[in-house]
Amino acid sequence: MVYSFAPGRVPPEGIGEDVLGGKGANLAEMSRVGLPVPPGFTITTEVCRDYLAAGRRFPDGLKTQVENALAETAALLGKTFGAGPDPFLVSVRSGARVSMPGMMDTILNLGLNDDTVEALAGRTGDARFAYDCYRRFIQMYATVVIGVEDGVFEELLDAARDKAGVGRDNELDADALRALVDAYKAAIIGDMDEPFPQDVHAQLWGAIGAVFESWKNPRAVTFRALHAIPDDWGTAVTVQAMVFGNSGTNSATGVAFTRHPSTGEKRVFGEYLVNAQGEDVVAGIRTPDPLLPTGHHDGHAMSERMPEAFERLNALGERLEAHFGDMQDIEFTVDDGTLWLLQTRKGKRTADAAIRIAVELAGEGTISREDAILHVDPALLDMLLHPSVDPDAKRQVFARGLPASPGAAAGMVVFSSTAAEAAKADGKPVILVRPETSPDDIHGMVAAEGIVTTRGGMTSHAAVVARGMGKPCITAASMVRIDPARRTMRAGAITVREGDFLTLDGAAGEVLLGELPMVQRPLSGDFATLMEWADSIRRMRVRANADALNDAEVARGFGAEGIGLVRTENVFLEGDGLQVMRETIMAPDERSRRLVLDRLLPIHRDTFVALFEKMAGLPVSIRLLDPPLQEFLPNDDEELGRVAEEMGMAVDDLRRRADELHEINPMLGNRGARLAICYPEIAEMQTRAIIEAAIIAGERSGAPVVPEIVVPLVAYYAELRHLRERIDAIAADAKSRHDSDIRHLVGCIIELPRAAIRADLIAGAADFFSFGTNDLTQTTLGISRDDASHFLTRYLDEGIIERDPFINLDREGVGEIIRMAVDKGRAAHPGIVMAITGEHGGDPESIAFCEEIGLDYVSCSPYRVPVARLAAAQAAIRANRGTL
Amino acid sequence: MVYSFAPGRVPPEGIGEDVLGGKGANLAEMSRVGLPVPPGFTITTEVCRDYLAAGRRFPDGLKTQVENALAETAALLGKTFGAGPDPFLVSVRSGARVSMPGMMDTILNLGLNDDTVEALAGRTGDARFAYDCYRRFIQMYATVVIGVEDGVFEELLDAARDKAGVGRDNELDADALRALVDAYKAAIIGDMDEPFPQDVHAQLWGAIGAVFESWKNPRAVTFRALHAIPDDWGTAVTVQAMVFGNSGTNSATGVAFTRHPSTGEKRVFGEYLVNAQGEDVVAGIRTPDPLLPTGHHDGHAMSERMPEAFERLNALGERLEAHFGDMQDIEFTVDDGTLWLLQTRKGKRTADAAIRIAVELAGEGTISREDAILHVDPALLDMLLHPSVDPDAKRQVFARGLPASPGAAAGMVVFSSTAAEAAKADGKPVILVRPETSPDDIHGMVAAEGIVTTRGGMTSHAAVVARGMGKPCITAASMVRIDPARRTMRAGAITVREGDFLTLDGAAGEVLLGELPMVQRPLSGDFATLMEWADSIRRMRVRANADALNDAEVARGFGAEGIGLVRTENVFLEGDGLQVMRETIMAPDERSRRLVLDRLLPIHRDTFVALFEKMAGLPVSIRLLDPPLQEFLPNDDEELGRVAEEMGMAVDDLRRRADELHEINPMLGNRGARLAICYPEIAEMQTRAIIEAAIIAGERSGAPVVPEIVVPLVAYYAELRHLRERIDAIAADAKSRHDSDIRHLVGCIIELPRAAIRADLIAGAADFFSFGTNDLTQTTLGISRDDASHFLTRYLDEGIIERDPFINLDREGVGEIIRMAVDKGRAAHPGIVMAITGEHGGDPESIAFCEEIGLDYVSCSPYRVPVARLAAAQAAIRANRGTL
Repeated sequence: MVYSFAPGRVPPEGIGEDVLGGKGANLAEMSRVGLPVPPGFTITTEVCRDYLAAGRRFPDGLKTQVENALAETAALLGKTFGAGPDPFLVSVRSGARVSMPGMMDTILNLGLNDDTVEALAGRTGDARFAYDCYRRFIQMYATVVIGVEDGVFEELLDAARDKAGVGRDNELDADALRALVDAYKAAIIGDMDEPFPQDVHAQLWGAIGAVFESWKNPRAVTFRALHAIPDDWGTAVTVQAMVFGNSGTNSATGVAFTRHPSTGEKRVFGEYLVNAQGEDVVAGIRTPDPLLPTGHHDGHAMSERMPEAFERLNALGERLEAHFGDMQDIEFTVDDGTLWLLQTRKGKRTADAAIRIAVELAGEGTISREDAILHVDPALLDMLLHPSVDPDAKRQVFARGLPASPGAAAGMVVFSSTAAEAAKADGKPVILVRPETSPDDIHGMVAAEGIVTTRGGMTSHAAVVARGMGKPCITAASMVRIDPARRTMRAGAITVREGDFLTLDGAAGEVLLGELPMVQRPLSGDFATLMEWADSIRRMRVRANADALNDAEVARGFGAEGIGLVRTENVFLEGDGLQVMRETIMAPDERSRRLVLDRLLPIHRDTFVALFEKMAGLPVSIRLLDPPLQEFLPNDDEELGRVAEEMGMAVDDLRRRADELHEINPMLGNRGARLAICYPEIAEMQTRAIIEAAIIAGERSGAPVVPEIVVPLVAYYAELRHLRERIDAIAADAKSRHDSDIRHLVGCIIELPRAAIRADLIAGAADFFSFGTNDLTQTTLGISRDDASHFLTRYLDEGIIERDPFINLDREGVGEIIRMAVDKGRAAHPGIVMAITGEHGGDPESIAFCEEIGLDYVSCSPYRVPVARLAAAQAAIRANRGTL
Repeated sequence: MVYSFAPGRVPPEGIGEDVLGGKGANLAEMSRVGLPVPPGFTITTEVCRDYLAAGRRFPDGLKTQVENALAETAALLGKTFGAGPDPFLVSVRSGARVSMPGMMDTILNLGLNDDTVEALAGRTGDARFAYDCYRRFIQMYATVVIGVEDGVFEELLDAARDKAGVGRDNELDADALRALVDAYKAAIIGDMDEPFPQDVHAQLWGAIGAVFESWKNPRAVTFRALHAIPDDWGTAVTVQAMVFGNSGTNSATGVAFTRHPSTGEKRVFGEYLVNAQGEDVVAGIRTPDPLLPTGHHDGHAMSERMPEAFERLNALGERLEAHFGDMQDIEFTVDDGTLWLLQTRKGKRTADAAIRIAVELAGEGTISREDAILHVDPALLDMLLHPSVDPDAKRQVFARGLPASPGAAAGMVVFSSTAAEAAKADGKPVILVRPETSPDDIHGMVAAEGIVTTRGGMTSHAAVVARGMGKPCITAASMVRIDPARRTMRAGAITVREGDFLTLDGAAGEVLLGELPMVQRPLSGDFATLMEWADSIRRMRVRANADALNDAEVARGFGAEGIGLVRTENVFLEGDGLQVMRETIMAPDERSRRLVLDRLLPIHRDTFVALFEKMAGLPVSIRLLDPPLQEFLPNDDEELGRVAEEMGMAVDDLRRRADELHEINPMLGNRGARLAICYPEIAEMQTRAIIEAAIIAGERSGAPVVPEIVVPLVAYYAELRHLRERIDAIAADAKSRHDSDIRHLVGCIIELPRAAIRADLIAGAADFFSFGTNDLTQTTLGISRDDASHFLTRYLDEGIIERDPFINLDREGVGEIIRMAVDKGRAAHPGIVMAITGEHGGDPESIAFCEEIGLDYVSCSPYRVPVARLAAAQAAIRANRGTL
């Protein structure tokens, strides 16, 4: 029923969390490793179950076992429970099999009474401290065990502060606290008609019973229901010796990292305070001293002032690292010269430190290279790859939104893409602020340092494009009201005018006033080493999504092994492409459209040649035009008039065509494969440009190019078959005209549920599948990513969903659809290549899912390629270990 | 190798289409039944396979068998092959196992040569006829067997017509045709350097070989590839005696129905022509006479002029009905006094006739009641239930569109719902013409006799609402250009002004100029009988979708067994509901919204009370508010101004809110369950109104009401759980306030793929599932029904899809999703009730699918309830027979 965790008395390893609870098992493990944890013992969860089942009765024999364990523990420390000169004080804590933070009760400083409090005051020479411990204990005990309302004590404490004329609890002196203790005791009798127990054994049994009871309190019951924790597990009770860092000048309390949490350097780093409690550090009344001397040796460092304790701490740090295989964050207390470890856990660290520590731990042989890879959270890499706002800068938040693209940038506010381009031409850095962006805004986004939209979500047009460009972007900044007429915007009481400086913190989703300084550290050699290890271990390939040549360059720099998705709509915006595309759309029939499109062919071909050359033989997947044609037409009256004039046509004709093309739900409209079937001439022009470009690039470089042509938004097998016939015919014609025999591949994007359901058939006409998880999420969930931020935020708040499905792949829904498509597609076409090319391709959790279902590669924004390489390696390791 | 189908020589029943081909097997069956078909024989498909495999060589022994069969057949008719005085002529036709219409070749009048043509002329006394047969035979034979280009003969025919100075082939006289025959023969020698064969046996073998060859022609190969017909089946060859209805005044040709195809009356009905060929009837040169005398007995009727042949025809009709169990459409020829049946098939008929015939055939004991049910195409009922344009009226089509709602109506054109209401108030019938409709147009649609929209598809708002109202509606009339400023519309060269009369033919999708007369026959007693039989047989229940009390009344009249879906958005438009809803939307916070909503509660409650009372204890499923809130706000500047003034608020505030609520893809936006979670006060008000109404209606009628509350657009289990908790809590509160213990049910609409995938979990929180196949089709296929008509039409044209997925459920895609949800839902919650409530609930094929997967009921537009009752019965019968 009772297990000690004193050194040498630790229970065998087989006795785990189910018996001892999480807390008890953890203490037992620390003690087993030889760490100096304050001694104590744990009453098993089984006792709790028996106690509750027997109508709140302790089982026979428990009393003896507990009293014996208590006596043994006290003797180990040379203290006495309930008596001076050195009274033994304990904490009594709950401990369920899994963590239920804050759900059950804890009591500290148990063992204090009117006698022992005086003994404590004598031993520590600090009556204020002793009485503060006592009044806290009484308050905790009375509320938890006796059932007094906590407000009673808070009122008395307020009164005591008023009477003493002080503002804070710790300014109350020993006499005031003594009086408060008396008032507390009187209040308990007044309220409950029973005194606060002076018998320390009565205190102990009251506390143990109360902890057991707390398993049944409403908070805990609700928590278990929500987290599917069985009601019959019960909680363990851990009774542990209290140690005090404020019991004299030979005592201290502090925090130590085994390596530097900012740089990763291998030396102990931390702070401590002599004769102090942990909460003193938090309260910030005294400034802590360093563990090791910094610049000036003033003798305050722990290594100088408490050299023995420090050396022991240093040695324990090494042992902990060896045991846990990672940098540790240790809470310690020195109680009258004796070092105690209260807690040790994996230390938080910066991205730089994380990489250095992982690589060095592997270099030292403490961990394997695989473990080193697992040690680094891929999300941290984002910080390394983008500049960030100087952490020391003073931030004044203008507005908050979704952190749609990381990085930081400062510039002058503009409210239109045209203004952005003009300012950029004048050499001015700009921040583009729009309600939302469309392909029409690409030139403005290229010109801007960063983008803010008041609408849209994590995968809106602005978000996707900005991530691709590696620029910070904040979307759904919904408190911002733009007044386009006055060229101002307002959030709360603050108004910002065009030309004012703003700074974006993309990772935080914050729009900051003024121009703040940035930092960006160069990538370290350790980073390169870690990525090399990751590359040698991962199974999945990593490609990048690229919209322009520049993206391809960035992607290669970050180690992309090809382009998984070229969104060709941007090629239509190059040069006078938009103008030509508008003429195409306005042309009266297919024949006229073909004539106009002939002018777009060379632009496309040149772009693709450059792309193939840049990727030097690496695979490149080019998607046929996907968005609805309406996106190429002007969308307001003013622009309509301007464009009509430019095109030399009647504004009514242009408006009529725009109205014809207008769609109520463009996401579900005439796009992708549908466009290619309704306007075959566009897909044919693109196909010819791709094949010709591949021939030219292959001849120039000598390395053959195998272009991959991607058909988007396929729902029916017949669509792909129909289009593949056309594509293959055009390709054959282009090859024969150029006397070439290069290969080409044709595949499709699986981004509609129907395509997944019919993947077996569709696989028959496809060389590869790429899963377009953005659109697949939209259709499977019936959620427009452009319109979702409002209710998804509410869903997250209400706990209806745990994560944004546009950021982390919805495994249970969209994931099941993908799994079905993979299984059906593979069964029908065993050699088919499968990949993910949606935004989820850069999300570590989603990448783990891709590994699980055996995809061949992931493709993501260029700036996320390193994240994906690392995440893919982690997934491969976990898959090998069976822990994916 | 050869099977005769002469009387008494018919092959056994086991020899079927795989051996004889479809044509041969059919002739054998007709002959076996004792019908007088012109005799002949069939060469098996196996011979074709052998012939092609052996490099175009006829197998040994075939010659003898064919010559023997030919001689026997000729002898049977007292004719001689290749000689006078009565030369035996045959047709040679292909016949694959399944029909491959027009894919392979046929040769008629084989056996004619320079001698026999003269004999034929002598026997028939009609040299023109004989030479016309001859020249047609030569042309057919030369193109099919010898391989001459058809154009050669067409040119010669043109020249002959020019020379004779006549416009039509049948105006050429015997001499001209004789000259043409000579020219044809000369052309064959000129072209192919071989003469047209005068040896009739050579003709026969050439023709047989050519038919076998035609199995391999490119058209046939492509057809087989498209229809997955194995290449190695081969074709049979059927050689059949030619008979002539134009071989003298004792000959005739005609068509007979065994019952009247318009009324269903049991008496032979048809027309015939003495001394004529079938094509003479088609050419319309002579007016055919009736089979039985009509008003005036002029002796022209077949029963008077050819009483023996007529009596035989009459008797054969009865035998055919008994054999095939249905009214037959017979093609017959009397050749020199002998009656031959050329073809018999199921006769086409009107809806009235179909029902009368089915019921009478069952009454006569010819068929079972189940077969009577299967005999009536449910789609025909649509005609019975709606008025239609008088078939005798002269139609002038203004525009065509999709036949979105059947029926016919005439009225004066208006272009706005307000104008429609005003005209209606003046007692004028109106046709409402709009680009598209929204819930804002409901009052206009109520006022109008029929609706035309230039956009939208078969399931657009206008279509769905009009079908529900039983009014004709034509959507996607895309050639119509509305000019709202001038209050005119134009299609091609015709302009129609506001106030002009139009007539809609909803079933044909035609907008007709002027006010045409209508017909509507009352429902017959036979109709009631058939529906009674259907009701006693079907397994699935049939409910109706209802938006208003009037719908419920219609639905009950048509036999609905409950309401499967009440779309409550229309309740918000009753009285000053729209105004109040707008105030709700503009209210600054939840508390204010609740205050405003309190005013909507009584409107909702009264509506629901009336509905429950109307349905008198039948189940009623009420859907919580589904559409996005933006649909309740004005959508253009003019209206925005008007509404702002009405509401006494700044137009900018109204515009700002409308902008906030504006969604790029409203279909995938904040609606359904999302709305109920973001604005819980709306769902709560509706729930309270439903429960209170059920209590009131139950108390008034004495019959307890069990209201069914439906949560739309659920994607996550947590959504339904969350909402169900609120609904149950509100319901409990309402019940306790009214001291009632009625039951209520809560279910959800499965209309998103994710909901189907997680149906096992979701079923845990649902009393019922209703499959919303409109939205499920939209999301599974990624197709907005409002925007789809353009490319779906193209898809149908290109053969990429065979049917519009919004009309006939897409079984392979959406159907698979539904099947998955049914299986998962049933496994997790065995008693759960499942139904379909999308527009597919009224489509017979989709209803068959619902039977297949075991749904509990279908719910459809009120006017389609009879269709659904019949279709459900048919599906049940087929399921029992294993032929579903």
